[in-house]
Amino acid sequence: MPHAINTSTQKLAEQIHQGDTRALARAISLIENNASQAQDILSACFPYTGKALRIGITGSPGAGKSTLVDQLARAWRKQEQTIGIVAVDPTSPFTGGAILGDRIRLQDHSSDPGLYVRSMATRGALGGLAQATADAAQLIEASGKDLVLIETVGVGQDEIDIVRLSDITLVILVPGMGDDVQSLKAGIMEIADIFVINKADREGADRVEKEIRAMQSLSHSVDNWTPPVIKTIATTGAGIAELISTIDARKTWLATEGRMEAKRQTYWQQRIETMVQQALLKAARTHGLSTEELAQHAQRITAKEENPYQLVPNLVAEIFQHRKAKP
Amino acid sequence: MPHAINTSTQKLAEQIHQGDTRALARAISLIENNASQAQDILSACFPYTGKALRIGITGSPGAGKSTLVDQLARAWRKQEQTIGIVAVDPTSPFTGGAILGDRIRLQDHSSDPGLYVRSMATRGALGGLAQATADAAQLIEASGKDLVLIETVGVGQDEIDIVRLSDITLVILVPGMGDDVQSLKAGIMEIADIFVINKADREGADRVEKEIRAMQSLSHSVDNWTPPVIKTIATTGAGIAELISTIDARKTWLATEGRMEAKRQTYWQQRIETMVQQALLKAARTHGLSTEELAQHAQRITAKEENPYQLVPNLVAEIFQHRKAKP
Repeated sequence: MPHAINTSTQKLAEQIHQGDTRALARAISLIENNASQAQDILSACFPYTGKALRIGITGSPGAGKSTLVDQLARAWRKQEQTIGIVAVDPTSPFTGGAILGDRIRLQDHSSDPGLYVRSMATRGALGGLAQATADAAQLIEASGKDLVLIETVGVGQDEIDIVRLSDITLVILVPGMGDDVQSLKAGIMEIADIFVINKADREGADRVEKEIRAMQSLSHSVDNWTPPVIKTIATTGAGIAELISTIDARKTWLATEGRMEAKRQTYWQQRIETMVQQALLKAARTHGLSTEELAQHAQRITAKEENPYQLVPNLVAEIFQHRKAKP
Repeated sequence: MPHAINTSTQKLAEQIHQGDTRALARAISLIENNASQAQDILSACFPYTGKALRIGITGSPGAGKSTLVDQLARAWRKQEQTIGIVAVDPTSPFTGGAILGDRIRLQDHSSDPGLYVRSMATRGALGGLAQATADAAQLIEASGKDLVLIETVGVGQDEIDIVRLSDITLVILVPGMGDDVQSLKAGIMEIADIFVINKADREGADRVEKEIRAMQSLSHSVDNWTPPVIKTIATTGAGIAELISTIDARKTWLATEGRMEAKRQTYWQQRIETMVQQALLKAARTHGLSTEELAQHAQRITAKEENPYQLVPNLVAEIFQHRKAKP
């Protein structure tokens, strides 16, 4: 049964909805820290979400993603679009976001209420970065931004999980990425709605485009959209206008035949499963899975006194049993 | 309560223990495919595990990890050590391991019963690649190999999760990795027991070493081991002997003051928590969380008719309730 949301949480949600940047920043911090009121804030903000367009930006380190995102943000601000940016760094599980947090990007926009920038880095296993990013994006949406940009550092499975929450995904490539570029591309080909070849003035830009086209010719387009390839030079702004109009074209495409709804539905289906899984573990932690007990089991397993593949089914049965006794 | 393991599963476990390579390959496939007997095989093999040394190898794409692993394997085989290699590719969530699977590596060893090579790629969210890799490593251990090498493709969070199961972790760097090498290093500095600078004949090898040393001087060594930096040229075999003696030194270090036990205990503590979480979700899938029901909820959430942050606590309560009714 959902419990009543208390007044201060409700008030925070209202402040976020009214565009209060400090309230938004505070709420995202509560999410990052797994604070007890986090779920209530998300619940209270949920009715205000769903209107923003979410754009995911991923690509190899060194591809110039930050500069590209900055250029896009500037161009959209000129069009009077309001923007939230979440910069995510899953490669840094220990430093806690210092790398991105210290970025002095978009400094000239720091007093612009139409632009909100937030860095996030890896948190503990429970929840995970992809979930925290998704929740942060929800709050930014609730604050009324027209566009939410989610920028990641690399191209691993984490980044793919993160950009999965986007309506449109840009994959940024760069000429001269080295031997294993083939293996990198294999994983990201399928998530790209639009390819961007940045630093396109470098030697090899045409070869990268040819490689993308060759891969595309091998896979059959299932949904009547072949991801376009746009060349940019983010540092000079070249190609940014074309990229924006390509994003607009994809937005129009999504708006027809219920494609946007279908995409978001698929997303939510995976998302609630993950949320349930996390909630179950949280419940389990209070029923027979305390840190002390885990440590004792781990010690016995290491000493070969206990078999983990027999222990776990037993623990799960106990958890349910306990819950049964104390409803 | 643990159920009885059936005879054919028990027989498969015995075959693995006796070093039957085809039985081992079949069992790993069962794990990859989440087959119903997977947990029973792991349970039956568990008593035969714990004796092998697990070595994790990670580093940027293009760092020459495969060649290095091949050279290490060759050198260890000459020392009569038996070896299992698990090559993991988390960057390829859709292609299902074709990239690594097609590798024609170590061809001249293909008839050597002392060497077993297996490729793995990303599977669905349930279970996950890190878990499947850990389970595969367990089975390889049970087959009696002295060394289990776990090689990953990149340096993201996934790779870190994967190498966490190792006793010793090698991080492979290479000169001239580009602008964002700093940000890559930040995440992997903490997991490296030994740094390897491969392709050390390239320009910039000394600079990479200096950068590692500079970072090490900033962080204080908590456990009386400053990760050594070894230079190799995997293609020629240069530095391999030194690398092997450094791995031996780390093994000796681990063998004292109960360090190995402490490390494995920490690993198992995290591992059983993950296993419980997965088992809970699996139980939930049969109690009120069918794919059809998930799809219906997702549809209502997308249409703003349902609030996911209220739904999930309700679903979890229902799951426990259901279980209570049918013990």
